[in-house]
Amino acid sequence: MTFPKAREHCGLCGVSGGESILERVHLGLHSLQHRGQEAAGIMVNVDGRCRVHKSAGLVDAVFRAIPLDWRQCRNLPRAISHVRYSTAGGSKENNAQPLMVEMAGQRVGIAHNGTLCNALSVRRKLQHEGVIFQTTTDTELILHLMARSLTKRHHGDLWEALEEALGEVRGAFSLLLMSHDYLVAVRDPFGFRPLSIGDFDDGGYMVASETIALQVAGARYLREVAPGEMVIWGPNNTMVSHRFAESPRRAHCIFEHVYFARPGSFVFGDSVYEVRKAMGRRLAREAPVDADVIVPVPDSGMYAALGYAEESGIPLDMGLTRNHYVGRTFIDPGITSRRKMVMRKLQPIVEALRGKRVCLIEDSIVRGSTSRARVQTLRDIGTKEVHMRVSCPPHRFGCFFGIDFPRREELLANKVPPDQLCRTLRLDSLVYLSQEGMLSCVKAFKPEDYCCACFDGNYPTPPELVENPTLPFFDAGGP
Amino acid sequence: MTFPKAREHCGLCGVSGGESILERVHLGLHSLQHRGQEAAGIMVNVDGRCRVHKSAGLVDAVFRAIPLDWRQCRNLPRAISHVRYSTAGGSKENNAQPLMVEMAGQRVGIAHNGTLCNALSVRRKLQHEGVIFQTTTDTELILHLMARSLTKRHHGDLWEALEEALGEVRGAFSLLLMSHDYLVAVRDPFGFRPLSIGDFDDGGYMVASETIALQVAGARYLREVAPGEMVIWGPNNTMVSHRFAESPRRAHCIFEHVYFARPGSFVFGDSVYEVRKAMGRRLAREAPVDADVIVPVPDSGMYAALGYAEESGIPLDMGLTRNHYVGRTFIDPGITSRRKMVMRKLQPIVEALRGKRVCLIEDSIVRGSTSRARVQTLRDIGTKEVHMRVSCPPHRFGCFFGIDFPRREELLANKVPPDQLCRTLRLDSLVYLSQEGMLSCVKAFKPEDYCCACFDGNYPTPPELVENPTLPFFDAGGP
Amino acid sequence: MTFPKAREHCGLCGVSGGESILERVHLGLHSLQHRGQEAAGIMVNVDGRCRVHKSAGLVDAVFRAIPLDWRQCRNLPRAISHVRYSTAGGSKENNAQPLMVEMAGQRVGIAHNGTLCNALSVRRKLQHEGVIFQTTTDTELILHLMARSLTKRHHGDLWEALEEALGEVRGAFSLLLMSHDYLVAVRDPFGFRPLSIGDFDDGGYMVASETIALQVAGARYLREVAPGEMVIWGPNNTMVSHRFAESPRRAHCIFEHVYFARPGSFVFGDSVYEVRKAMGRRLAREAPVDADVIVPVPDSGMYAALGYAEESGIPLDMGLTRNHYVGRTFIDPGITSRRKMVMRKLQPIVEALRGKRVCLIEDSIVRGSTSRARVQTLRDIGTKEVHMRVSCPPHRFGCFFGIDFPRREELLANKVPPDQLCRTLRLDSLVYLSQEGMLSCVKAFKPEDYCCACFDGNYPTPPELVENPTLPFFDAGGP
Amino acid sequence: MTFPKAREHCGLCGVSGGESILERVHLGLHSLQHRGQEAAGIMVNVDGRCRVHKSAGLVDAVFRAIPLDWRQCRNLPRAISHVRYSTAGGSKENNAQPLMVEMAGQRVGIAHNGTLCNALSVRRKLQHEGVIFQTTTDTELILHLMARSLTKRHHGDLWEALEEALGEVRGAFSLLLMSHDYLVAVRDPFGFRPLSIGDFDDGGYMVASETIALQVAGARYLREVAPGEMVIWGPNNTMVSHRFAESPRRAHCIFEHVYFARPGSFVFGDSVYEVRKAMGRRLAREAPVDADVIVPVPDSGMYAALGYAEESGIPLDMGLTRNHYVGRTFIDPGITSRRKMVMRKLQPIVEALRGKRVCLIEDSIVRGSTSRARVQTLRDIGTKEVHMRVSCPPHRFGCFFGIDFPRREELLANKVPPDQLCRTLRLDSLVYLSQEGMLSCVKAFKPEDYCCACFDGNYPTPPELVENPTLPFFDAGGP
Repeated sequence: MTFPKAREHCGLCGVSGGESILERVHLGLHSLQHRGQEAAGIMVNVDGRCRVHKSAGLVDAVFRAIPLDWRQCRNLPRAISHVRYSTAGGSKENNAQPLMVEMAGQRVGIAHNGTLCNALSVRRKLQHEGVIFQTTTDTELILHLMARSLTKRHHGDLWEALEEALGEVRGAFSLLLMSHDYLVAVRDPFGFRPLSIGDFDDGGYMVASETIALQVAGARYLREVAPGEMVIWGPNNTMVSHRFAESPRRAHCIFEHVYFARPGSFVFGDSVYEVRKAMGRRLAREAPVDADVIVPVPDSGMYAALGYAEESGIPLDMGLTRNHYVGRTFIDPGITSRRKMVMRKLQPIVEALRGKRVCLIEDSIVRGSTSRARVQTLRDIGTKEVHMRVSCPPHRFGCFFGIDFPRREELLANKVPPDQLCRTLRLDSLVYLSQEGMLSCVKAFKPEDYCCACFDGNYPTPPELVENPTLPFFDAGGP
Repeated sequence: MTFPKAREHCGLCGVSGGESILERVHLGLHSLQHRGQEAAGIMVNVDGRCRVHKSAGLVDAVFRAIPLDWRQCRNLPRAISHVRYSTAGGSKENNAQPLMVEMAGQRVGIAHNGTLCNALSVRRKLQHEGVIFQTTTDTELILHLMARSLTKRHHGDLWEALEEALGEVRGAFSLLLMSHDYLVAVRDPFGFRPLSIGDFDDGGYMVASETIALQVAGARYLREVAPGEMVIWGPNNTMVSHRFAESPRRAHCIFEHVYFARPGSFVFGDSVYEVRKAMGRRLAREAPVDADVIVPVPDSGMYAALGYAEESGIPLDMGLTRNHYVGRTFIDPGITSRRKMVMRKLQPIVEALRGKRVCLIEDSIVRGSTSRARVQTLRDIGTKEVHMRVSCPPHRFGCFFGIDFPRREELLANKVPPDQLCRTLRLDSLVYLSQEGMLSCVKAFKPEDYCCACFDGNYPTPPELVENPTLPFFDAGGP
Repeated sequence: MTFPKAREHCGLCGVSGGESILERVHLGLHSLQHRGQEAAGIMVNVDGRCRVHKSAGLVDAVFRAIPLDWRQCRNLPRAISHVRYSTAGGSKENNAQPLMVEMAGQRVGIAHNGTLCNALSVRRKLQHEGVIFQTTTDTELILHLMARSLTKRHHGDLWEALEEALGEVRGAFSLLLMSHDYLVAVRDPFGFRPLSIGDFDDGGYMVASETIALQVAGARYLREVAPGEMVIWGPNNTMVSHRFAESPRRAHCIFEHVYFARPGSFVFGDSVYEVRKAMGRRLAREAPVDADVIVPVPDSGMYAALGYAEESGIPLDMGLTRNHYVGRTFIDPGITSRRKMVMRKLQPIVEALRGKRVCLIEDSIVRGSTSRARVQTLRDIGTKEVHMRVSCPPHRFGCFFGIDFPRREELLANKVPPDQLCRTLRLDSLVYLSQEGMLSCVKAFKPEDYCCACFDGNYPTPPELVENPTLPFFDAGGP
Repeated sequence: MTFPKAREHCGLCGVSGGESILERVHLGLHSLQHRGQEAAGIMVNVDGRCRVHKSAGLVDAVFRAIPLDWRQCRNLPRAISHVRYSTAGGSKENNAQPLMVEMAGQRVGIAHNGTLCNALSVRRKLQHEGVIFQTTTDTELILHLMARSLTKRHHGDLWEALEEALGEVRGAFSLLLMSHDYLVAVRDPFGFRPLSIGDFDDGGYMVASETIALQVAGARYLREVAPGEMVIWGPNNTMVSHRFAESPRRAHCIFEHVYFARPGSFVFGDSVYEVRKAMGRRLAREAPVDADVIVPVPDSGMYAALGYAEESGIPLDMGLTRNHYVGRTFIDPGITSRRKMVMRKLQPIVEALRGKRVCLIEDSIVRGSTSRARVQTLRDIGTKEVHMRVSCPPHRFGCFFGIDFPRREELLANKVPPDQLCRTLRLDSLVYLSQEGMLSCVKAFKPEDYCCACFDGNYPTPPELVENPTLPFFDAGGP
């Protein structure tokens, strides 16, 4: 009964060449734990054989159970790894990644961040050709397409097959693939999800969803994988770039900056930290408040609050403390009231807030139910006024590119007219950052290079692709 | 470090119609536990959706963890289930069965006992057509062949597709398949492995590898599935027989009678109990012994020993006791000597054997190492003489039809010349039952209707099919 | 819903001196697994510190989890170990043994087989003196009594304290105790439970509940610990005998011979194998039968059946086969009929029994419900007659010396008049072995040296001691 | 290889009367998780029987496994619960609390926060009287003393016995005890550790280590348990106060304010939040810095940093981000360098810090090794200067009252002369808050009412008591 705002499906980390590959992948993937807490997995080439270890659980727990012979193996040439977010009501271990299969006599593994928006039609087409499916992931589709492409060729070049397969899928896909001799990093032509490359002093390379992984593992940031680019590291660890598709437009997910990415990361050419602070400053200019104290909603509202406080001159205080032992998936049948669930996680400090005009800085509001309960706890302890400033516009649309928002009708901004939002949340005032304001805070690309579909409904791909992306739930092998 | 003689890969049990389907499958599969202790699985149609539950472990443990809603579901129309044998050095849970996939929009599950001897060439052919493999089982091949066959048809009749698929595979396959509305039982044209049908008073049917399952579950034995026959139960539970292939010859595995099947079962038209006793009697006539006591090697030598004692007039005594708490897969790094491993499992009773001329009745000798250690323990306690009579001929050849003997060069009869066998095992005398004698004990079919290839090398299928059936070991998802 | 006849509480195995102590204790305790399947534990002196490892589960599983440093330790001087039987409705891991405490600055551990019949009064007396209890075992009482005795002495000799403590308890106790420097084996003055000593070629000693442990571990049998004797191995591994109490009379549990002990063991000076065969022969003389076949109820009726068949000249056949994968504690909510539970475990072989006059040989009948269901399964398959011969007299009384029979009113012989027993069990005839006949089969001691209280109610200790031995159930720390 | 600064042993939460006792205790104990992450436990009176559930793990995990009948029980009258800190190298589940025993026919449970400094002499005295110990906790001693006291009385009043027991122990003890009919809260005469009382609208009471538990569970704060006071809730839930000892002086642990307690709690009459902010302001006055940015070391340095920034006018920025998925006990054999371990947990944000003069605000420095590695990571990213201000004086002495600091010789301030500290940590400047300054920030009591022994060595109890409080490590039942 903890309700995360949205669920993104993955974090990726791969390494080619260099020393201490297991340690580097572990450090890198661990720093991406915020992108997925359900399951983790790693694929390596141990003594010449591709093997996968994956299971439900946090990165540290999964890595602690790595087979002993992997640790003893001295010459691991490459590895890919993956974290996956928890989905409500029962996650399926057999959907964990990397997904490894045998194809044309080779083992090939894949890890995927994003969502294919034409998965259903591809799946149907493959069905008609006699393909059987063992998971419900859209990721499996890419492997089938590759395998079919391979059959048309005389010499089985996996990466030409991959290029052909990618030509048939639409949507968001940052991918890592691995075979006996190769590591490949791929980013869809729109560049929905981030994917960055770094290198180590000893010649090793790392590819990861966010640059924080490079930093923690000790790698230097080199550059992003470009939209429509495929970067290949072969047996001798040379890095080769190949453009597999024209990029019709960029469509970087702005919500990575607003909420998902770690503040210590660079994504889409900007520092998340700087973007969030700029959003706070912009918000202070767009929506000033007459308050005694600026209070961030931890942890994601912190940097916008710092920016807001700086710009407004109103002092910042950490008037809400977070209990970090609240697991995201905790459900106790005995704790059912939302007030208690909210209080379990965030506790207001009475001495900091009582009698004051408080302005909360939130990164975003999705359903609104948690926000309302939180405001109530502030009222209960005797605040004089409670205002809220939100560092992005209202969420009104679903995402078909890798973020699992609740259904449209559950989004607060679709349930309540704009002029009722403030009263619904029992606030004294409520202002969202404008979309223009939000986009003014990113510097690396032009405003039209970002995907803001969850705010404005302007999906970068044709509408027929995004109508019914949900696959029937398939639980082979699970309970 | 317990060394079973041979490893067969499965036991099958399915139910269509009638009451208490979960209970019946549980009772039936549990009685087939001797056919596989590595993993167990069950597939049911719960509230209109096909689901699988499977994991490593014994039947009781796997069934104890069955999802609660399965138990609460009142209208389970059908189920298939499977036990799988432990393989040395690391078994793979993702190779457990039933294997369920999605095919042409339907979920289809399969459970398999046997080995396809043209698996490698089928696999290669499918690879060339762009198929990817997620397990290393030959069972997966049948599903791929079905799916491909389906694509050529206008109306997707699964069972026509199955028939076509079976036309492409060779070898031993007793199969259970299940879809939303159907249960199908299949036996290969040679009839290598047993598969029997029974029914219940309430109209339900059961299909199982051995009749003991019918007996324990309370079903009446009806008949065997015939070689080359496909028996189909549809939505209204009527039983339809269909012959999908001519049977070139029968080739019933004689080793089922010698060792694998439970003595309470009927297989290939004969009572295992009666066959084993007859083997003992025949052995007594072929190879009389001058001994004070006949001692069976528990548990599998029991009935041959009863027959031997009866025929010879020499008293039988249970001079070896077995510790049934010896798990087959137990490995303790601190217990390495074979004498101790053997002693852990079988303890001679000193008072029964000391000073006596003992004749051990063994069902078979494969590697010989365990037998040698066992004879030594008998010598150690002061027996006067130790003779051995074996209720089948020497093992000299591998099996490509479902029994996983050690490699040919590890078989005792290939390592030691015939005249040295007795001395190698430190016996006073050693005689094997002749092949002719062995075959005289089965009554239902003619001698040429049995496969004795592990004894005489006469494989019922062309030699090119059996040359290299071993697939490279594939451990996707396993440790 | 498997109903064992009776539950005994323990098996013991200890080693002092010699090589490979962990391996020896493992082999020894494993061979005593039939005396307790609930939990197992071991106490060793690792690098000069006494440590305990114990948990629920079978011996192999518990030993597999032994801490790594124990295995690496080269100089383990001694060890004691224990297996414990499952008790219905929830066993308590914190009642597992060995129980180790700190006493007068030393760690002392104890393992116990038997029951103290004055536990309640001792417990009350200790309570009045201010003692607190952390388990519900009577075993804990002995440690408290030792500790109190120690306080009265100038120099803390643990074993004098033990002697004094033993002076205050009554009942059945075969004990192993261990401290930093000592191993002690104790047997109560009546000698209710067995306890034997053996030695190894390398100078090591083993003490174990049954001689099968010595045999499997490779030790020579030396002798039993005498009733009222305490055998002490000190730092230099010399064996010292000390008589701590006069033995008022011997009272060896005859049920060890009838049912509990392994046929390969010597207990109370007799071979269990020989005693059981003699019981069968005597039974044949006391109660001849007009039958076609003698069928043992496996596994415990085997040797009496061999004796009966030998004496009567009627052929023996193994007409009932046992599924050894039936765990004793298995409960499946879906399998509730007794017929099915019985059939799960023992399957009649139709071909061996149909149309025949069958005589079953049982070791004992306690509640009778299992026997009745079993007879019914024999009738169902078309036997002509079913007779039963039981190798001990009817059970009519409870045991206060270590065997946990059901309550008196649940015993068949107390529920049904003698002349109705045969009909109640649906038998054609039923005869029990006479008590005199049973006692004629043991040779080492006189008939009056055995405890037959469960048959005749003649308890060897005064009646006031055995009236209310049940302690209130205490579940500190358990669920 | 995460090195927490110090280890305190416990948090306590008890409830008497009112509704939803399990939920309240869960919410309360969960909010005290920061006081102990090793193990958690709860004792309740379920249907008239005292029972304990405890195990290793976090509060949520332990509560998820609570027996089902507890949840279904409608009339739980009272409960006590406990969290326990992880100790390096192997924690012992059997030392978890509450510790429940049987004493004079009653079950009594106890939960303890603190350390008895005369535990060794009490333990020796009890040993001489014949007591045996099953744990190594000093908590067990209190129960033994109670039990012995009870034996001298005619009518067994547990709480008189408790009072007498408390007369024999010295040191820090905040206790909760529970019997069938009573809940008792005790605080030692010095008041070392906090313990507060609250009540609910429905008449229920809660006692907890920190007031945050009351807030989260929805209780009103009433008052602290006074030093030397025993508060008793009986069967009818009336609250009775009893003074069991004179308070020679107050000795409140100042480190609760500096580091341990949650900022949302009131302890010793002051708001932790306010005390920490005041420390930051005082530190700014005592030790100004010429810096561009104030950066707290999360999470414990946050409020001092806010105070410092406020007082100094230097902007605060969250230049270090924390990965909250770093378990405290994580050990990966492949990650051994301290730099990597530090980086795993805290990542500097390059954009916030590069080229700047940074002043870190730490709550305290114990060993110094983590601080040094952290400073190095700041240097690596190109900060211009790195200063550190610490919101307490240097740690130079051990604690015998409930906080488990490393040994004296491991404390940085004892290893390095004062003028070398700055260079050792590679800082540009380093200033600690003065003891006088620190004590000026607490308002409720006079400076001499706090225990600052870890800073100045002035232990509130006579020195002979604190010389050798370490008990030999005792691992009965553990691995």
